[in-house]
Amino acid sequence: MPVASDVILGEGVQIYHPDLVNLYGCVVGNGTRIGAFVEIQKNVSVGKFCKISTHTFICEGVTIEDEVFVGHNVMFINDRYPRATAGGGLQTEEDWEVIPTLVKRGASIGSGAVVMCGITIGENALVGAGAVVTRDVPDQAIVVGVPAKAVGDVRDRKEGA
Amino acid sequence: MPVASDVILGEGVQIYHPDLVNLYGCVVGNGTRIGAFVEIQKNVSVGKFCKISTHTFICEGVTIEDEVFVGHNVMFINDRYPRATAGGGLQTEEDWEVIPTLVKRGASIGSGAVVMCGITIGENALVGAGAVVTRDVPDQAIVVGVPAKAVGDVRDRKEGA
Amino acid sequence: MPVASDVILGEGVQIYHPDLVNLYGCVVGNGTRIGAFVEIQKNVSVGKFCKISTHTFICEGVTIEDEVFVGHNVMFINDRYPRATAGGGLQTEEDWEVIPTLVKRGASIGSGAVVMCGITIGENALVGAGAVVTRDVPDQAIVVGVPAKAVGDVRDRKEGA
Repeated sequence: MPVASDVILGEGVQIYHPDLVNLYGCVVGNGTRIGAFVEIQKNVSVGKFCKISTHTFICEGVTIEDEVFVGHNVMFINDRYPRATAGGGLQTEEDWEVIPTLVKRGASIGSGAVVMCGITIGENALVGAGAVVTRDVPDQAIVVGVPAKAVGDVRDRKEGA
Repeated sequence: MPVASDVILGEGVQIYHPDLVNLYGCVVGNGTRIGAFVEIQKNVSVGKFCKISTHTFICEGVTIEDEVFVGHNVMFINDRYPRATAGGGLQTEEDWEVIPTLVKRGASIGSGAVVMCGITIGENALVGAGAVVTRDVPDQAIVVGVPAKAVGDVRDRKEGA
Repeated sequence: MPVASDVILGEGVQIYHPDLVNLYGCVVGNGTRIGAFVEIQKNVSVGKFCKISTHTFICEGVTIEDEVFVGHNVMFINDRYPRATAGGGLQTEEDWEVIPTLVKRGASIGSGAVVMCGITIGENALVGAGAVVTRDVPDQAIVVGVPAKAVGDVRDRKEGA
């Protein structure tokens, strides 16, 4: 089941290709749109009127507030030192602690960005395409690069620029 | 429908897994090959004898000429300041202008590259894997890095190197 | 067939969404887990008790030993100068030599990393998320960035950190 029965979808959620996504155990708010080839794991909360673009992966531990734009192929992370195995077998949930990440209202995350764990991305902040976010992003900040550094403030750009 | 009825496919186009792609409103030239987990949006034109590799996203506004190699997981962009919402609801097509990108004949774009909008990638140019392309790439240039910078000319490398 | 009939799967291999992967001509060892939207090509060998996370692409020429963690959206490469065409038609297998890559036992590769061809990633090494790996990674090394550079040794970090 690409959209598992335990997913809680708000009113008007648009999933154009429910057969080409993998959603389970998550909550998605009213009016949010989800593209193809997206995986959203359990215990994720996505707010209202968000856009979650194609090829994006949202892992357990991520909370996305309302009106957030998540570009294509954005990767979230919840484990700083991932390993395949522990004690001779595959790691299970007991073997690591999920480190949470918060994306605040109105933020935009550009395509191809990678967001490390334990991060807060501030309100209306803009993360550039291809950035690797390794520390908190202040409200209204524009960050770009690897690792991502602040290069401006979204309030300084002209509308329509 | 993973390959929508409005897609115009040339002769001999190869889509190995039509159930694992999302194509709509685009034109694909003769002899081009398209991998799994690819999305190509409306008003995209892909030329003849191109390779579009797995996991790649080609958005509205992109024109790809003939004999272009697009690696795996390449992301194109058509909006410099994406936002989820405008005026209280999800953004619609009326809320932004699509900024076009052109990839010229014979160019190659390495896997994981991100191509910002408003870019022209020149003939036979080579974009390195993982590059973030933020400005035009001249014909025959080799560019790598974040942001992508010129490091050579494709005519200088030995054949078979 | 998203899991082709010529794939050799060990005991206890977990593929949660066999309809959302593309595997052909490869060997996968006992107890390994494979996420959605993964492509694994022919002549790839994946060891035992590995985790191959969503959206990852493993091309021909890659050998992954046992107990390796491959994050989400990791891209391997087997051709340094890819081109779409040769002699007027699409390139075929005869037109390039596959350059092999080896990932040794216990290594971890972070999400969004790109691994160039001809690389060896050493035992227990840790490749940071979003890194572009352009040269060999020693055993036990931690590498990050674009291009990836050594920043530490996995034996120096405290357990549980």
